[in-house]
Amino acid sequence: MAIDLRSDNVAPVAREIMAAIAEANHGPAAAYGADDWTGLLQERFSLLFETPVTVLPTLTGTAANALSLSLMAPPFGAVYCAQGAHVDLAECGAGEFFTGGAKLVPLEAEHGRLSPEALERALAGAGRGDSHRVQPAALSLTQATERGTVYPLDRLRSLTAIARREGLRVHMDGARLANAVATLGCSPADATWRAGIDVLSFGATKNGAMCADAVVVFDPALAGELRYRAQRAGQILSKMRFLSCQLLAAVADGLWLRLARDANRAARRLADGLAGIDGVEIVHPVEINQVFARLPGAMRERLERGGVVLYPPAGGVTRLVTAFDTASADIDRVLAEAAP
Amino acid sequence: MAIDLRSDNVAPVAREIMAAIAEANHGPAAAYGADDWTGLLQERFSLLFETPVTVLPTLTGTAANALSLSLMAPPFGAVYCAQGAHVDLAECGAGEFFTGGAKLVPLEAEHGRLSPEALERALAGAGRGDSHRVQPAALSLTQATERGTVYPLDRLRSLTAIARREGLRVHMDGARLANAVATLGCSPADATWRAGIDVLSFGATKNGAMCADAVVVFDPALAGELRYRAQRAGQILSKMRFLSCQLLAAVADGLWLRLARDANRAARRLADGLAGIDGVEIVHPVEINQVFARLPGAMRERLERGGVVLYPPAGGVTRLVTAFDTASADIDRVLAEAAP
Amino acid sequence: MAIDLRSDNVAPVAREIMAAIAEANHGPAAAYGADDWTGLLQERFSLLFETPVTVLPTLTGTAANALSLSLMAPPFGAVYCAQGAHVDLAECGAGEFFTGGAKLVPLEAEHGRLSPEALERALAGAGRGDSHRVQPAALSLTQATERGTVYPLDRLRSLTAIARREGLRVHMDGARLANAVATLGCSPADATWRAGIDVLSFGATKNGAMCADAVVVFDPALAGELRYRAQRAGQILSKMRFLSCQLLAAVADGLWLRLARDANRAARRLADGLAGIDGVEIVHPVEINQVFARLPGAMRERLERGGVVLYPPAGGVTRLVTAFDTASADIDRVLAEAAP
Amino acid sequence: MAIDLRSDNVAPVAREIMAAIAEANHGPAAAYGADDWTGLLQERFSLLFETPVTVLPTLTGTAANALSLSLMAPPFGAVYCAQGAHVDLAECGAGEFFTGGAKLVPLEAEHGRLSPEALERALAGAGRGDSHRVQPAALSLTQATERGTVYPLDRLRSLTAIARREGLRVHMDGARLANAVATLGCSPADATWRAGIDVLSFGATKNGAMCADAVVVFDPALAGELRYRAQRAGQILSKMRFLSCQLLAAVADGLWLRLARDANRAARRLADGLAGIDGVEIVHPVEINQVFARLPGAMRERLERGGVVLYPPAGGVTRLVTAFDTASADIDRVLAEAAP
Repeated sequence: MAIDLRSDNVAPVAREIMAAIAEANHGPAAAYGADDWTGLLQERFSLLFETPVTVLPTLTGTAANALSLSLMAPPFGAVYCAQGAHVDLAECGAGEFFTGGAKLVPLEAEHGRLSPEALERALAGAGRGDSHRVQPAALSLTQATERGTVYPLDRLRSLTAIARREGLRVHMDGARLANAVATLGCSPADATWRAGIDVLSFGATKNGAMCADAVVVFDPALAGELRYRAQRAGQILSKMRFLSCQLLAAVADGLWLRLARDANRAARRLADGLAGIDGVEIVHPVEINQVFARLPGAMRERLERGGVVLYPPAGGVTRLVTAFDTASADIDRVLAEAAP
Repeated sequence: MAIDLRSDNVAPVAREIMAAIAEANHGPAAAYGADDWTGLLQERFSLLFETPVTVLPTLTGTAANALSLSLMAPPFGAVYCAQGAHVDLAECGAGEFFTGGAKLVPLEAEHGRLSPEALERALAGAGRGDSHRVQPAALSLTQATERGTVYPLDRLRSLTAIARREGLRVHMDGARLANAVATLGCSPADATWRAGIDVLSFGATKNGAMCADAVVVFDPALAGELRYRAQRAGQILSKMRFLSCQLLAAVADGLWLRLARDANRAARRLADGLAGIDGVEIVHPVEINQVFARLPGAMRERLERGGVVLYPPAGGVTRLVTAFDTASADIDRVLAEAAP
Repeated sequence: MAIDLRSDNVAPVAREIMAAIAEANHGPAAAYGADDWTGLLQERFSLLFETPVTVLPTLTGTAANALSLSLMAPPFGAVYCAQGAHVDLAECGAGEFFTGGAKLVPLEAEHGRLSPEALERALAGAGRGDSHRVQPAALSLTQATERGTVYPLDRLRSLTAIARREGLRVHMDGARLANAVATLGCSPADATWRAGIDVLSFGATKNGAMCADAVVVFDPALAGELRYRAQRAGQILSKMRFLSCQLLAAVADGLWLRLARDANRAARRLADGLAGIDGVEIVHPVEINQVFARLPGAMRERLERGGVVLYPPAGGVTRLVTAFDTASADIDRVLAEAAP
Repeated sequence: MAIDLRSDNVAPVAREIMAAIAEANHGPAAAYGADDWTGLLQERFSLLFETPVTVLPTLTGTAANALSLSLMAPPFGAVYCAQGAHVDLAECGAGEFFTGGAKLVPLEAEHGRLSPEALERALAGAGRGDSHRVQPAALSLTQATERGTVYPLDRLRSLTAIARREGLRVHMDGARLANAVATLGCSPADATWRAGIDVLSFGATKNGAMCADAVVVFDPALAGELRYRAQRAGQILSKMRFLSCQLLAAVADGLWLRLARDANRAARRLADGLAGIDGVEIVHPVEINQVFARLPGAMRERLERGGVVLYPPAGGVTRLVTAFDTASADIDRVLAEAAP
């Protein structure tokens, strides 16, 4: 059978989450989030994050991101992000759509991580108060980053401190927050609002859920518009219990972190193995479930023939992504195929 | 146990559809619709509608409607619909959002059904070519209607003939298309494109699915933009197989029509029973799974005490909605509670 | 020579305003409103309205209206207005465009005037807090109305009191505010913010200017976004002095009211004359510079042959509009041609 | 008296254009562009460009640019432009607003000029057909550029040939087209549609007009939506004759080119003079009416004291802009003040 390392969203649904869905399927339940699961979700996430939050399940991560940005940036606003950020490059303009035309401004980044210096420079030249220029409104940080790295907490805090000083709101694209928290070994609160995050896209789909991400609002002042914006975006599921139960299952007994740790561990094993093969260059630090590597052409052919499914390289770099269900045996097979 | 007649979206997921979801949950599958289920979906829906169609699973009916309209109406366009249409009144402005600001123009309707005369009148006064006025672009028809009635095919054809003559595109909001087709006893093709429909919102969620509606495009000229617009709306599920499998299960062996017939039959039984009780007035013909009735206040109280859950009346009228899983025994219990 | 009664915007520019433009045309001046004329404009309008205001010259009344609404209504908002309001029917969806898709909700009106009862009814059924529904955000009142009538101050105050109670902001479309104030004989302050108006579209173009309307913001809390929204709408003229000088000239020595009184007087004379002719029906009270009348077909033909230019009737009703430069002799000639 | 070199939009209105405005101010004229001036404008511009064009006067260059882009790029489109392009950086997001959220993609440029290589590279990596990515839709070229340079015709043709091959539409931001054509010495047709331009923003305001730019559509297939989009943007002036007469005067007897040549000549004189002063570095070729120079701090102080008005330097570079009315004596005075 093929081993698919294209992305963590090719994976199936984790057993515990599928069970939760099946269990939610009994009798009638109030529609549009007035059900018990969604009610409980507010409590559980507030406990998880050690502060009262507003949580709205969305159907995709793109929706969570774009809705989040729409709470922070006016149509004439600028949203700063790292070069290569998903919100800028991989959502077909969802951020622009949901905000009514705000501008995503990509800034130089190293290994996917924005530096405080780059942010300072951008803000210094932003033309605040000059109506010819879009106005600094928000900062969007991806944690873990699009290059498979993780912002250390002090870096996060430096960035959000600048943002706060300049009146910017801060969004975290947490499509792979679980993988980052697993790596950081900190609490979800430390990883988010205590580090200065106002609104979080909480990803579950890439981590074993079927179709459940969420907007988590830490600053109550930003929560008021969320539901209306979500409704007009077609993101309020009528049978919302089936989303909420996925998120509840994800955070029950630390499942989300267990799944993420399994995925991270597989990537570590993969990276270590590949690094030992002649001609392979690992191009970014491997801190979550992704390995970015330059692979010799012959190796890519061997892998393909051996049933390892990969996306084509971009700029010569192949991204290999493990998931919660990637077994050590799978990695060993990949490495065996990779070996010359 | 309570009997919930608030809406058909309080119902759980039909057994067959839940089984299809569980079955889809094996091994990896290509993301974003490159999977086998979604591929098969194009074929099955093309067979079902007896013509090649483009079908895109969406996560809500609102998304299906708003995406459909965005394929038809420019930002300066007018979209005609019946007074009380869901696209105008119950989607928090999704149509305006997705089209970039087109205007929904509600027209007088009787029992939820638009008349050719009302449409002709509106078009005659629309100011075509006058740049002060939004320009006629599309007609949106709800089948079955928001008042629980069904457009006969000849009425549909009269309306769409006017639209075509005037250069308007035609959308059908088929959130309850199954219920309408069950009532009409015609083929899905006769109910849609053969009656002049260009784009269809195919509803499954209210009819036993978990979270699966779809945009079905009959006119290939309109299909090109669909995927991009859906992506930027956060409507392209990464694990799309879990949507497509629901739609496949719905149309396999006529399940969607069986479920709809069951729901319709329950409403019929309910309406007949209520009509026989003094003081009850059925205000719209009962042609699908909805009963609109004026109920004496005392009766509403008895029902509530008896565990029958209803939304508050609107303008004195209570809407009672049955679902695929409403048993005859449930209806009999409702009627028993209703009786003075 | 033809007498053109199609609209007050077919008129040329008043002598005093043309002189002000010529006078502004000396030497360089800072661009984008940093010039002296625009600076002075803030002062003069603050004096005129007896309160500090923010005033931004715009190039059209449509822009003034749509910018005003964009300060008040979120994309998921509802803006209430009278049936037939210019913002709803004659601006090709500018309100929807500038607000990002808010919904204009036309309410029943008599002679163009909204009633407190109609507003109360609409708000009672608006579904506040229900995310399926767009949320009440603003009230837009046209003064003078699109039917040539004027809201008495107490009616204005009743309407804005309801709005305030319900948390709605209030916009006044004052494309013909001068004509209304001339009729009311009150102060500009009494006609606007003292009657509960938050943001005003101040019209000058229909009253002798070349291309100068303005957004006048009374509530400072609403002013912050104005300039950015105007810039991105292409409404910030680089040589803004040429707009500001028109507005300064308009309000210098009460010119705007003199011009408006002349136009109103001509309409009065026209209405009185027409009313005395058999077969003519004046359909709305004539309170400003507009006469709405049913004219016998033969009379329309005589007028046309006699060089009186009119728009075609709408629903059988002809609108005759006088301007600041309509002479009594012109009216007498019209009446002579009209007479059988 | 001060000599203001901040921009060409600090200049007054050219005598001939002011005269045309005064002359247009007689008697009534049909509103919204049905007047004789606007009718004539279509003819004159068609003659000027040697092909039938649709020309719509707009009130600002930003509006002309943003309307142009909205004819070319869908909401999910990408518009390529040079780094530092006015449409990207100096219009507060107007392009995003008018297109409904398309993405402006700035590409590396030298002296403001895009290279065919940069465009090819961008298109090669654009992800055409991948719905995660905004889709290549248009190319926007500024002629003359924001750095005071001019695209040679063969460079223009190379760029538009790539665009055409890839299905992109081409826009020219001609805010200073007159200055470029004066430099190129070619016909307006050669400078635009014969070089592959589909839609042109024709600037007049920076070149002696009061408030008149225009969208000029060369490809009739793109003209249909223009008027509606302009109306809903508040860009259709009711007394449009006063815009059209400015444009007519501008192109009568080659006035626009005479004015541009005067401005260009003054910049040439200024650049030559500055280049001879120790410590001055001219950073871009001076091909129109703009000089970009690094000036010693002491020189800036002398200039300021001497009544020469300049914007603050950006990145150490001062932009000095001459206008149609900058006299040789003005330049000589500037140079005298500049000399150590």
